[in-house]
Amino acid sequence: MAESEAAPEESKVEVKQLLTLAQLATHIGAELRGDADFRVAGIATLENAKADQLSFLANPNYAKHLADTAAGAVILHPKFADACSTNVLMMPNPYLGYALASQLFTPVGLQPSGIHPTAVISADATIGPEVKIGPNVVIEASAFIGANCSIGAGCFIGRGSKLGSDCNILPNVSIYHGVSIGERVRIHSGAVIGSDGFGFAPDQDRWHKIEQLGGVTIEDDVEIGANTTIDRGALDDTLIEQGAKLDNQIQIAHNVRVGSNTVIAACTGISGSSSVGKNCMIGGGVGIAGHLTLTDNVHVTGMTLITHDIKEPGVYSSGTAVEPNKSWRKNVARFRQLDQLARRVRKLEKQNNQS
Amino acid sequence: MAESEAAPEESKVEVKQLLTLAQLATHIGAELRGDADFRVAGIATLENAKADQLSFLANPNYAKHLADTAAGAVILHPKFADACSTNVLMMPNPYLGYALASQLFTPVGLQPSGIHPTAVISADATIGPEVKIGPNVVIEASAFIGANCSIGAGCFIGRGSKLGSDCNILPNVSIYHGVSIGERVRIHSGAVIGSDGFGFAPDQDRWHKIEQLGGVTIEDDVEIGANTTIDRGALDDTLIEQGAKLDNQIQIAHNVRVGSNTVIAACTGISGSSSVGKNCMIGGGVGIAGHLTLTDNVHVTGMTLITHDIKEPGVYSSGTAVEPNKSWRKNVARFRQLDQLARRVRKLEKQNNQS
Amino acid sequence: MAESEAAPEESKVEVKQLLTLAQLATHIGAELRGDADFRVAGIATLENAKADQLSFLANPNYAKHLADTAAGAVILHPKFADACSTNVLMMPNPYLGYALASQLFTPVGLQPSGIHPTAVISADATIGPEVKIGPNVVIEASAFIGANCSIGAGCFIGRGSKLGSDCNILPNVSIYHGVSIGERVRIHSGAVIGSDGFGFAPDQDRWHKIEQLGGVTIEDDVEIGANTTIDRGALDDTLIEQGAKLDNQIQIAHNVRVGSNTVIAACTGISGSSSVGKNCMIGGGVGIAGHLTLTDNVHVTGMTLITHDIKEPGVYSSGTAVEPNKSWRKNVARFRQLDQLARRVRKLEKQNNQS
Repeated sequence: MAESEAAPEESKVEVKQLLTLAQLATHIGAELRGDADFRVAGIATLENAKADQLSFLANPNYAKHLADTAAGAVILHPKFADACSTNVLMMPNPYLGYALASQLFTPVGLQPSGIHPTAVISADATIGPEVKIGPNVVIEASAFIGANCSIGAGCFIGRGSKLGSDCNILPNVSIYHGVSIGERVRIHSGAVIGSDGFGFAPDQDRWHKIEQLGGVTIEDDVEIGANTTIDRGALDDTLIEQGAKLDNQIQIAHNVRVGSNTVIAACTGISGSSSVGKNCMIGGGVGIAGHLTLTDNVHVTGMTLITHDIKEPGVYSSGTAVEPNKSWRKNVARFRQLDQLARRVRKLEKQNNQS
Repeated sequence: MAESEAAPEESKVEVKQLLTLAQLATHIGAELRGDADFRVAGIATLENAKADQLSFLANPNYAKHLADTAAGAVILHPKFADACSTNVLMMPNPYLGYALASQLFTPVGLQPSGIHPTAVISADATIGPEVKIGPNVVIEASAFIGANCSIGAGCFIGRGSKLGSDCNILPNVSIYHGVSIGERVRIHSGAVIGSDGFGFAPDQDRWHKIEQLGGVTIEDDVEIGANTTIDRGALDDTLIEQGAKLDNQIQIAHNVRVGSNTVIAACTGISGSSSVGKNCMIGGGVGIAGHLTLTDNVHVTGMTLITHDIKEPGVYSSGTAVEPNKSWRKNVARFRQLDQLARRVRKLEKQNNQS
Repeated sequence: MAESEAAPEESKVEVKQLLTLAQLATHIGAELRGDADFRVAGIATLENAKADQLSFLANPNYAKHLADTAAGAVILHPKFADACSTNVLMMPNPYLGYALASQLFTPVGLQPSGIHPTAVISADATIGPEVKIGPNVVIEASAFIGANCSIGAGCFIGRGSKLGSDCNILPNVSIYHGVSIGERVRIHSGAVIGSDGFGFAPDQDRWHKIEQLGGVTIEDDVEIGANTTIDRGALDDTLIEQGAKLDNQIQIAHNVRVGSNTVIAACTGISGSSSVGKNCMIGGGVGIAGHLTLTDNVHVTGMTLITHDIKEPGVYSSGTAVEPNKSWRKNVARFRQLDQLARRVRKLEKQNNQS
């Protein structure tokens, strides 16, 4: 993993508190072997951890570092406990343990409490208790902001849009009117929710705008990455189901449905009215054409183009693999003659069968 | 199409008015058969429409729903009128009818009238009549905002940039200096117009910035999607011609020209100095290399890479089609030997000819 | 190159000053042949330049325009000097000369001096001398803004983030907490620096957030394009090394390293923990999978997918070339049988060898 010696200490923000290993074990559901009162100040990799830091072993390839890690404690599977030279937090899924521990060490108070005086909030909007609203936020009439939401600086929330409780909207997010967002949704900077779906009717060599009258529904526990765009539906809503996770710079067209717990990597685009099932994993840079249905549990590798329904769970791919440009140029030229080549092979087969 | 039962009623915004079918027929240019005084409150699909809603039949595959739709009226081609159980609005291009009707049902007043007091507008800028300017908008010196424009919250409009009348700029759009925009242009949130073209001169193992001294010209009736970026020209202007429609997350490099009425789907990138003709349809995720010319009426399917001029109208493609990963891995490995395979076939053919 | 006759004169902004050719020659390191006191008012191509404008010849294909250019002076290689009808500025790398000259003609004062009264700056932030801060900028506690930085309208700079001197941050950029930026870094509108890396641990059919505890380090002389996103690291920092240039809409995942002086064209995505070497040139729309290492001096052509390490400098590609859709459909169908085709050829070869 990349790291920089030059990262200045003063750029770090404070974490919540120092936690004892006993507290950590309880929080992450691990069995502790070692000093219950030992306190850790952060998380680091096995190779980089210092004596006051927690580490973890999720990928067995790194087990070789267990013997000489400087970490103060390590989350790991019980079978690796004996190989570890320090305190251990044992659990069957140590990667989950790392995730749960990371949530304890994230900086708190990044968004100051209260409503900044520069925020422009309609008198007709409803703001729940304990909501934090940053500078220059604009919240329009009939909007609803649930309890304990945090809205970063410069966000726009349009008329009648609704956020459930505990949402975290980072700075400079644009949420149009008529968007419905569930609870515990995190949306990163630059994301745009509810922009017009791309709909135009051709007539006499020009395009007539189809106003997009639907909205967007985002269910609970969704995360949406930076600069991702989710268009509003033409008539019905575009839908992101519960627990789906969308990375950065993803494009979701109008009336798409993303099924619950599906994860989509960055730079993927899904065209209008397509439906991606539940528990899918869509790689980065994937393109999904319009009006398609992908069933549940579909995995798609990076930069695949999908132009037909996928009805069976499994792993799917398209494209070709990287190679030196010199050989690629030759192979690409041959690809354009591939149908012809196949016909020539068929002809050879016939000749051989006749002879 | 995806829709959610959970979409809360309170998130809907009001539409302009209830329209009689007689009014609708006049507006969209249809012939009415039925109750001229019947009023419709919105638009929905044939399957979902309620008794007070308008629907339409554009794709004949859905004609089966005509007999039992609950819609109060249906826009359709005359040949389907007899199959429809309710009021009909007949016209040769019902999809156009739907588009024109949708424009009547879009919410009005989303952007409040007037200039919000938090807007920061240079005393040297010119603001036309009936312009709406949202909170925290910044308009710099010598900018010109035409009559009846709407500028959403948080937009930035740089020095000397010019918007024609009736433009609709959604929140958090960034328009640099020296950008010229025509009339009736709509630009969605997060779009960036006039950022630096990507130009650097190499010398002695480092890159020297080429300042981008051109601008951007966007002609009338263009639409630009959310988070799309259009770079300013190096010396001359980048140009988006009249009536072109650009979806979300499109990248237009410096000195590109997009011809009039060309539509480009999301996530497509056009490299520097390339020219796309008029009335083209460019699919999503397409890449167009630099210094190329595509003639008029070119259609490009999704995720195609274009590396040479296209001189003939038609449909163009590249890439491979999705398949199960297991077979794909084998085929991809063979692709890297494709030139060799073709040579082997040639050799076989020679052998057969000799024998 | 695209240009528009319609670009209104009033949208142009003023340049710094008129420069004499003698001044220009000194600045760009060229040898002047001609009128040392002649003053030029701007830069244009050989074909478009007017009598008071400077031009340049970098690509020999345009040498034919030297004889009849109307330019007042031309930067060129000495070997072309005699073919030029006007004043010449001779140097071995005229493209560098153009770059250096362009820096003299860029508009000045686009960002007004001083700190705008609407900016919201924490009392705990440190603002260096001669810093320009636009309207509605938000700078949080413990942030550090170096001398002579310019921060455009609507930017957000999170807690503890640090900008070295002479940075130019265009409007509506979002910089999260804990980001460290070097000197002379330019970041274009809509870019997001420090958003969460995409990390979730699966457990019992749902995803648990891995909070991203690292930051982002951007070294000196980096440029970052519009709407580009750079995620913060999971534990260590994501790193963009000195002099790297990133175009628009690039996605840099957590813990990626981009080596010094590497240039990356628009719409490219680099997945987590991958490392791109120094002096690489990565084309547009490229996808680089996670945990890979590309050595120094690697060139990757547009829309290539990289799924394994690249250990040797050189040019690399993947994909297929554009062709008419009709033939493409046939070839694509054959691609899915390519492994089978290769086996059939092998069988034919065996038959021929036996016969």
